[in-house]
Amino acid sequence: MPLYNRFVLPEAQLDSLTVVLVSPRNPLNIGAAARAMANFGLRRLSVVAPFEPTWREARSAIGAPALLVNAMESETLAEAVANCTLVVGTGTLTRRKPEQPVVPLPDLAPRVSRELASGGRVAMVFGSEKHGLTREDLSYCHLLVEIPTDPLQPSMNLGQAVAVCLYELIRSAVSAPETQPATSAISITSAATSGRLDLLAGVIEETMQAAGYSPRAMQSANRHDLRLLLRRLSLSTQDNRRILGLFRRILWRLNRGHGGDRKSG
Amino acid sequence: MPLYNRFVLPEAQLDSLTVVLVSPRNPLNIGAAARAMANFGLRRLSVVAPFEPTWREARSAIGAPALLVNAMESETLAEAVANCTLVVGTGTLTRRKPEQPVVPLPDLAPRVSRELASGGRVAMVFGSEKHGLTREDLSYCHLLVEIPTDPLQPSMNLGQAVAVCLYELIRSAVSAPETQPATSAISITSAATSGRLDLLAGVIEETMQAAGYSPRAMQSANRHDLRLLLRRLSLSTQDNRRILGLFRRILWRLNRGHGGDRKSG
Repeated sequence: MPLYNRFVLPEAQLDSLTVVLVSPRNPLNIGAAARAMANFGLRRLSVVAPFEPTWREARSAIGAPALLVNAMESETLAEAVANCTLVVGTGTLTRRKPEQPVVPLPDLAPRVSRELASGGRVAMVFGSEKHGLTREDLSYCHLLVEIPTDPLQPSMNLGQAVAVCLYELIRSAVSAPETQPATSAISITSAATSGRLDLLAGVIEETMQAAGYSPRAMQSANRHDLRLLLRRLSLSTQDNRRILGLFRRILWRLNRGHGGDRKSG
Repeated sequence: MPLYNRFVLPEAQLDSLTVVLVSPRNPLNIGAAARAMANFGLRRLSVVAPFEPTWREARSAIGAPALLVNAMESETLAEAVANCTLVVGTGTLTRRKPEQPVVPLPDLAPRVSRELASGGRVAMVFGSEKHGLTREDLSYCHLLVEIPTDPLQPSMNLGQAVAVCLYELIRSAVSAPETQPATSAISITSAATSGRLDLLAGVIEETMQAAGYSPRAMQSANRHDLRLLLRRLSLSTQDNRRILGLFRRILWRLNRGHGGDRKSG
């Protein structure tokens, strides 16, 4: 029973968003990129100038997803993105002075959605594990997206970078629309009414007295604090019923143990 | 020339956010989780019941980051999160009916920031590659976060799941700087730690038994429900202390009343 069955990009747009891996070397990374795509509902993968043995291995791995088996392959990035209207280069950009506009990843989604909504085709381009995207590669990009990593450890693993970027694109589609009311702890179940809280407070107070917890001088202050406490806890009806049951049992036992010297009946 | 030199959580809060891996099996995944942490500037890693050969291998890998070498190790999740005030379980939740509030990942950051800002300590808990978090594990969590994956391919790779979750926490700090409105009922006082909640749960359970509330066949289910209930209530340290005091008093009185037949001493 997933929360997100309205999943996520309109069907027609799914095929307009391509992930492009440029010269990937490590079959595990290729597999991880493909897996992240499947997790976030994408299906068009394009691989540029892969290292052949690696690529064969990744593609023929047991359980390789269809999107890996069906991936497009091309010699050059130019070819891979030829039919795209928005090409987004990814990186962490600590060394190079960028020649294009740079968008922080958290601000990317609106730009991509707009492009897709207007019938465009978008490529998200990831460089090789070793060097990232070259200056030549970047020259095919309309804009660069920067993942906000720690300057002390800026370079991300390829599979993780793909996951984070795709999550960001999916994220806005998930978090913006329709409902999803402020997630409060109790919003699922019905909250206990004030009257029920008072009933509970009464039984707890009796228990306090029966257990000798609440000296006479403190009773009024304790009653006040207890009332506040019970409200602060946001008890559901069911919580309230359970706690009431427990305290009634305790009270009965305490009074029985003392031969009913505090309560008769 | 990174865009994000105001990086990212206040220094003092960095040590209040722990990533907990429960029973990880694959050293590559452990390494990937550690790398994502370094990318997003975190440094506290805790590993619960790792598969020993794997753990040794991951830890001693060439270039293993300091946070991996310095990771804490514990036998149980209870121990790993004992000093945390907010324990967040992660998953994709397609099978189980959750017993806690579920927060979509895109809505998690404000809840975590609030907790950190008020001096709390937060754990993000990730289950093993094979099964994710067990029902027992989940009972230590205050809330569950759901990564919005495709129902057709819900299960994420561990390293990628860690990257996506940490990115989300960092994301908001990057995209919505300063401020911090939303005052919650409990943000004023410090929240009770997981360890203190367990202490309280133990005393309440003893009380239930002493009062004859909990028949033997129900004890395990009651223990489970009690653990969840106490987490749902968002008890402050002070609430916790008071309730503990009350139950200790009750317990003492119950046991005395029965001539110490259940407890000696």
